[in-house]
Amino acid sequence: MKTVIVGAVAGGMSAATRLRRLDPTAQIVVFERGEHVSYANCGLPYHVGGVIADRGSLLLHTPDSLRARFDLDVRVRAEVVAVDRARQVVLVREVAGGAEYEERYDRLVLSPGAAPFVPDLPGIERAMTLRSVTDADRFTALLAERQPRTAVVVGGGFIGLETAENLHLRGLAVSLVELDRQVLAPLDPEMVAAVHTELRRHGVALHLGTALTKVLPDAVELADGRLLAADLVVLAIGVRPEVGLARAAGLTIGPRGGIAVDDTMRTSDRHIYAVGDAVEKTDRLSGETALIPLANTANRQGRLVADAIAGRPVHLDGRLGTAIVQIFDLTVAVTGWNEKRLRAAGRTYQAIHTHPASHAGYYPGAEPMSLKLLFDPGNGRILGAQAVGGAGVDKRIDVLATAMRAGLTADELADLELAYAPAFSSAKDPVNMLGYIVDNLLTDAQRTVQWHELDAAVTAGATLIDVRTAAEHAAGHIPGSLNLPLDELRARMDELPAGDLIVYCQVGQRGHTATALLNGLNRRAANLDGGYRTWHAATTDG
Amino acid sequence: MKTVIVGAVAGGMSAATRLRRLDPTAQIVVFERGEHVSYANCGLPYHVGGVIADRGSLLLHTPDSLRARFDLDVRVRAEVVAVDRARQVVLVREVAGGAEYEERYDRLVLSPGAAPFVPDLPGIERAMTLRSVTDADRFTALLAERQPRTAVVVGGGFIGLETAENLHLRGLAVSLVELDRQVLAPLDPEMVAAVHTELRRHGVALHLGTALTKVLPDAVELADGRLLAADLVVLAIGVRPEVGLARAAGLTIGPRGGIAVDDTMRTSDRHIYAVGDAVEKTDRLSGETALIPLANTANRQGRLVADAIAGRPVHLDGRLGTAIVQIFDLTVAVTGWNEKRLRAAGRTYQAIHTHPASHAGYYPGAEPMSLKLLFDPGNGRILGAQAVGGAGVDKRIDVLATAMRAGLTADELADLELAYAPAFSSAKDPVNMLGYIVDNLLTDAQRTVQWHELDAAVTAGATLIDVRTAAEHAAGHIPGSLNLPLDELRARMDELPAGDLIVYCQVGQRGHTATALLNGLNRRAANLDGGYRTWHAATTDG
Ligand SMILES: Cc1cc2nc3c(=O)[nH]c(=O)nc-3n(C[C@H](O)[C@H](O)[C@H](O)COP(=O)(O)OP(=O)(O)OC[C@H]3O[C@@H](n4cnc5c(N)ncnc54)[C@H](O)[C@@H]3O)c2cc1C
Ligand SMILES: Cc1cc2nc3c(=O)[nH]c(=O)nc-3n(C[C@H](O)[C@H](O)[C@H](O)COP(=O)(O)OP(=O)(O)OC[C@H]3O[C@@H](n4cnc5c(N)ncnc54)[C@H](O)[C@@H]3O)c2cc1C
Ligand SMILES: CC(C)(COP(=O)(O)OP(=O)(O)OC[C@H]1O[C@@H](n2cnc3c(N)ncnc32)[C@H](O)[C@@H]1OP(=O)(O)O)[C@@H](O)C(=O)NCCC(=O)NCCS
Ligand SMILES: CC(C)(COP(=O)(O)OP(=O)(O)OC[C@H]1O[C@@H](n2cnc3c(N)ncnc32)[C@H](O)[C@@H]1OP(=O)(O)O)[C@@H](O)C(=O)NCCC(=O)NCCS
Repeated sequence: MKTVIVGAVAGGMSAATRLRRLDPTAQIVVFERGEHVSYANCGLPYHVGGVIADRGSLLLHTPDSLRARFDLDVRVRAEVVAVDRARQVVLVREVAGGAEYEERYDRLVLSPGAAPFVPDLPGIERAMTLRSVTDADRFTALLAERQPRTAVVVGGGFIGLETAENLHLRGLAVSLVELDRQVLAPLDPEMVAAVHTELRRHGVALHLGTALTKVLPDAVELADGRLLAADLVVLAIGVRPEVGLARAAGLTIGPRGGIAVDDTMRTSDRHIYAVGDAVEKTDRLSGETALIPLANTANRQGRLVADAIAGRPVHLDGRLGTAIVQIFDLTVAVTGWNEKRLRAAGRTYQAIHTHPASHAGYYPGAEPMSLKLLFDPGNGRILGAQAVGGAGVDKRIDVLATAMRAGLTADELADLELAYAPAFSSAKDPVNMLGYIVDNLLTDAQRTVQWHELDAAVTAGATLIDVRTAAEHAAGHIPGSLNLPLDELRARMDELPAGDLIVYCQVGQRGHTATALLNGLNRRAANLDGGYRTWHAATTDG
Repeated sequence: MKTVIVGAVAGGMSAATRLRRLDPTAQIVVFERGEHVSYANCGLPYHVGGVIADRGSLLLHTPDSLRARFDLDVRVRAEVVAVDRARQVVLVREVAGGAEYEERYDRLVLSPGAAPFVPDLPGIERAMTLRSVTDADRFTALLAERQPRTAVVVGGGFIGLETAENLHLRGLAVSLVELDRQVLAPLDPEMVAAVHTELRRHGVALHLGTALTKVLPDAVELADGRLLAADLVVLAIGVRPEVGLARAAGLTIGPRGGIAVDDTMRTSDRHIYAVGDAVEKTDRLSGETALIPLANTANRQGRLVADAIAGRPVHLDGRLGTAIVQIFDLTVAVTGWNEKRLRAAGRTYQAIHTHPASHAGYYPGAEPMSLKLLFDPGNGRILGAQAVGGAGVDKRIDVLATAMRAGLTADELADLELAYAPAFSSAKDPVNMLGYIVDNLLTDAQRTVQWHELDAAVTAGATLIDVRTAAEHAAGHIPGSLNLPLDELRARMDELPAGDLIVYCQVGQRGHTATALLNGLNRRAANLDGGYRTWHAATTDG
């Protein structure tokens, strides 16, 4: 049995090594049109920034080491340019010289990845993209030779932000251009505000809600007419599955533009499999197809396709798309769907915002974070989560991603036994706390109002009560709110105006106790979810 | 409805505040025989050590603040000394003065906690224990007034180790005495070795496998005859549920010596509930009762009992007992059962050891950790996990505890989508990797040998093959092993002796590839689980 693999990085090489372990005598040939194999794409921005100084550490293998260890026939600078499905051969072109030859396969695995999208704009040739080690080398050379002082990064996604940060670390003045009104589309607006602040705090100039229109020799032009100095222009406006080869071969391409595969990674040709960024995955929540260009899934699929080829029973479940990014001193992580997407899809959901500390406040070094949980109030299903903060953000999202994968309901989060000592968490971990809040919502022990529902509620006649201390109120409050500190509420009930009340505190916690008290004493009160902090982030970002 | 609560800290006070939110007009009286309420027991060792300098930060509430915020009637220095179940009254004794009075209840909640065990030994009066703020104050005073230079901590559990570390931070020369051959009973021996090393590295003198027999005025005497200088003696040899009150009242005490409760926290008297360290929990794995004196569970039960009293449907599931402790630069965390316990209970299990990095090795700051997973090879059920290392230990145990709670099987860990960027994890997170290894074991794609099975296997005729490099082999290897580096294995197959082979590398990963190759080429090979590192830890600790 002979397997041919196209693409020698995350998906392709994981498939090759696994297949070798499953079958020590199988014939395995891997084609890679680039110069390098098995490299850490995800480390590239940090190599550009000098954080990962040793370029060699990004190269996990060479064709030689892969031959020695795994008896793999890995051919670099060899592009597969066509697939003849009827004859089960691929046509290979050597990048140096252009010589072509055919290679027969019993099974073919495509893992060609995804290519940075490059719009057709005047002067765009000068713009750089970052995908391969060769690309990174280009950055390094340019930084050394031309000593650029200004950079414009176009695109506020994960790679765009990582690149912006790393160019900043190299001493460049960095501007970031993003068509949307916010960076990091996976975050909802009130959660992204902290990211905008963090970027600006480090001197990254944000140009949101506008597009690149032209690349000039030492600047770029934006749709809003502005000119930005740009010794360096980086394009990071998303990636597109590399489907040229597959399409030309007549394989089915899915609705999102990726190669269509079943849950064993098989394409529409039963001898051909495909994995990684090039393929469409199944979204865990909707069951529809989705593009999820992430390394975890590419690696998982690579191993799985080897099992499939070796005849082992396999099956890939729907994906959540858990992702994380470091932005200066902030960590941002997400899993599942965000509110924008739920709303657009017309799904029933409820949101919760909290602002817990990474660990017990009395133990040194606790860092603040903001959490958002989305769940279905009908059945308690967890739909998504977002976290922004410092230490412990990754942990909470991983726990939530695990809970989602396992089908725990949102209220069951209260029962998780998460490791607690003061340096690591609180006796009620932030994830437990989410479970408590959900429990209150599901059992009608609490009603909440979201920051974006506030205006309408006030217009409809509700009074806003700030239950924080007078000092907190003085330091900033929601316009029109009455200050009545929680600890005085019981004694001063008669000062409250008639009608509906909306209570708020700093993060929602005192507001919860106040709301419970008021409702118990026959007032109609709701708690502002996430408190002043969420409201403030949502309404003052810009 | 009037609820009386005994004990005003984790369980008791969580019950009181929750009950107040559920019923703003209920009458709630809380008795606390100590001076303080709602304090962070878990921070006490760090206050003793000066890490948490501000004593006030440990006191989350006072009776006054609890009255203002929650309208609670909290009486300190008031001990409940008897319960008259027939009349539904408790007898209260004021610590100052000894005056006694009765207080009627509709519902009674006991959350008296657990007391440090104090053995009856000569001179034991001088030994100190650490449970309350008052105890911590005693430490602080003694440290200031007597300027002790030597301390003996008896007991190598969580609190003992935290206390030892913190006294070390105060500049004392600390000895630790532990009856068992190891500290931290929840860890298996090969996992605890690193903890012993860490303690010794910081100058803590370990006296394992021996007991305290006598406390002298400035020293202690051990069972092995040794005398240890001890200006300060600390007892931390475990806690016993405070069941005096419950027992005298005729409530059922369970087989482990805790108050027996059902899954709504109800005792054998339907008007009396009990929570926290004083009660027996249900072990999630065996369904039997267990003592789990941890704050997460005490807090959870406190909230839950309030719900039960308020008539809300509640039910507490079996517990895993997830726990964590910081020991100098090491973090140790556990969940579920360990191997010792599984073996003693005669359960079927299989163990896996790995030694992953906290995040991608090429990104700065990655720290090593050791993971151990225990699972049932029959049904894939996860039975327990242990982690020792630095950054990311808490995260992996929390993910595993979540997976266990949710009933994921061990091989399903491979499918978790855990947040990956180089600063946080690897494309295959250490938890995913455990899933892969389990998958190999469950599907017979891999056979492993444990460190403690090695001698028997070699005696039975197996040859040990070290597949690491010659340099690694030279730096230390298992006696009697043949060095044949993985990358040369294929070419030098004919050098291998006949018969069974046991392969090992540094951590098990190259060994896995070597084993797969050998088995595929019709040799009978097994991989040493955890590699040289686990073997070395297990065999050289002492
Ligand atoms: C800068 C950067 C940062 C990233 N950071 C993260 C991160 O932090 N976390 C995360 O989860 N993911 C991250 N990713 C995404 C992650 O790297 C990808 O999801 C993963 O590499 C996809 O694996 P793949 O095998 O599908 O494609 P790739 O790893 O891209 O490999 C595809 C290979 O196929 C080769 N190829 C394509 N067509 C042909 C052909 N016709 N013939 C021969 N060879 C061909 C290409 O040259 C390429 O080397 C990042 C990606 C980049 C570029
Ligand atoms: C030093 C130390 C460190 C710890 N570290 C951790 C950790 O890192 N992680 C973790 O999970 N857990 C830790 N714990 C355990 C955790 O604190 C307990 O699990 C938790 O406090 C138990 O709550 P409880 O309500 O059952 O008992 P407690 O919190 O102990 O409260 C019981 C209270 O009841 C009072 N009381 C008892 N009897 C009477 C009576 N008859 N009348 C009136 N009052 C009475 C006592 O004075 C006491 O204040 C630690 C404990 C200690 C002592
Ligand atoms: C590295 C690469 C070549 C794959 O090599 P690999 O040997 O299959 O993978 P890993 O090094 O991750 O090891 C995984 C294997 O070791 C096994 N393993 C890991 N730790 C082990 C241990 N302690 N004991 C036993 N087995 C272990 C796993 O079970 C798995 O084997 P399996 O697939 O047969 O189950 C490929 O993933 C790659 O090219 N990666 C770099 C590119 C990339 O991922 N980029 C995107 C992210 S930056
Ligand atoms: C602090 C203590 C008095 C309990 O007070 P509490 O107000 O019930 O508890 P917390 O401050 O933890 O807050 C939890 C409540 O706030 C709610 N909450 C938390 N964050 C919220 C938010 N952002 N929005 C809305 N509600 C929120 C929770 O839902 C929960 O309310 P519920 O029980 O009605 O569901 C009690 O736990 C205690 O004495 N602790 C100290 C002792 C201790 O735990 N020691 C051992 C560990 S060191």
